[in-house]
Amino acid sequence: MRREGILIVVSGFSGTGKGTLMKRLVKTYDSYALSVSMTTRKARPGERDGREYFFVSHEEFEKELARGGLIEYARYCDHYYGTPRDYVERQLACGKDIILEIEIQGALKIKEQYPTALLLFVMPPDIKELRRRLSGRGTETEEVIKARLSRAKEEAEGIENYDYLVINDDLDLCVEQMHMLIRGAHCAPKRNQNFIQNIRAQLDALAKGED
Amino acid sequence: MRREGILIVVSGFSGTGKGTLMKRLVKTYDSYALSVSMTTRKARPGERDGREYFFVSHEEFEKELARGGLIEYARYCDHYYGTPRDYVERQLACGKDIILEIEIQGALKIKEQYPTALLLFVMPPDIKELRRRLSGRGTETEEVIKARLSRAKEEAEGIENYDYLVINDDLDLCVEQMHMLIRGAHCAPKRNQNFIQNIRAQLDALAKGED
Repeated sequence: MRREGILIVVSGFSGTGKGTLMKRLVKTYDSYALSVSMTTRKARPGERDGREYFFVSHEEFEKELARGGLIEYARYCDHYYGTPRDYVERQLACGKDIILEIEIQGALKIKEQYPTALLLFVMPPDIKELRRRLSGRGTETEEVIKARLSRAKEEAEGIENYDYLVINDDLDLCVEQMHMLIRGAHCAPKRNQNFIQNIRAQLDALAKGED
Repeated sequence: MRREGILIVVSGFSGTGKGTLMKRLVKTYDSYALSVSMTTRKARPGERDGREYFFVSHEEFEKELARGGLIEYARYCDHYYGTPRDYVERQLACGKDIILEIEIQGALKIKEQYPTALLLFVMPPDIKELRRRLSGRGTETEEVIKARLSRAKEEAEGIENYDYLVINDDLDLCVEQMHMLIRGAHCAPKRNQNFIQNIRAQLDALAKGED
């Protein structure tokens, strides 16, 4: 079967180490690429254009949006963040599995446009651990914890939209598990349409030849 | 996450070694059990009741069918074959993944009744190999080959109903791949409803406690 690249969306509760997991996955296996978002916020020291983000002006972002160049976008704290379509599709065309971290609304928008996208939801091993992670290291204000909790409740409502739950207990095991799930996802019929069409065409040819 | 047993249906083109794969899987990992079908055909030498099949009379089979004791059944060559519900559900209750080999109509009947069932479709690595397997070892009559080909065409039409394609090129690799796919399937939200409900309930409790 010719391998078609998969668009992988990673969501999950705050503090579950999604970013670390994704970076580790990309570092460990060369079949993955990270999606680079476009943003209107200023680059911070050490950030490089095209690596952490594509840094653009408000005008450039809105132009990109208008021409349909973003798969999804959101606005936080007066700044736009979006997923560039060209970049993603170039990676997929190369057979790469491209990973992006995004919350549920964005994940659903992506699934609408890319029905073969794979949606992963990262969770802590148990509720005690979730509570610990939501509270941070005891340095967070009551407000921040409340906001995270309310966000977590909202996210928990959407879990059934995801293909798989990934439990992040041990980082290495979790990276292995994500890799296993993605390898498995490559075996779904909807991600092997060419292979299946080819098998059908050849069976037809075989049947005609034998008549 | 408490592991819930999965009902696994294996279908695929004739001659792709489904039976061998399943037996190997059960032998290699103790999380699996094979489903034992009920049949009205006579036991052959070496076959044992409750191991190869549950051997019953026509009357017993029809009684079982009437009381809803069979998940699916079919009639071939004047004999009934069916999947006993009690046996399957006992294995699932023990957390076992129970595997059965069945053609597409039966697979779809099972999916209707057990929406969390996992449907695997076994394929040869390429069409040349499929042709070889359909023709057997050159000992098959033209009639038999034609029948298999027509059956394969019909089966190929239904592939999109399956969760995964499994390519049987190398037996050991294929058993590993099946095991990987089944382990992955255990991570789907629909197969972890209790865990998710529990997370939601605890998030609610946490939110109430902090108000």
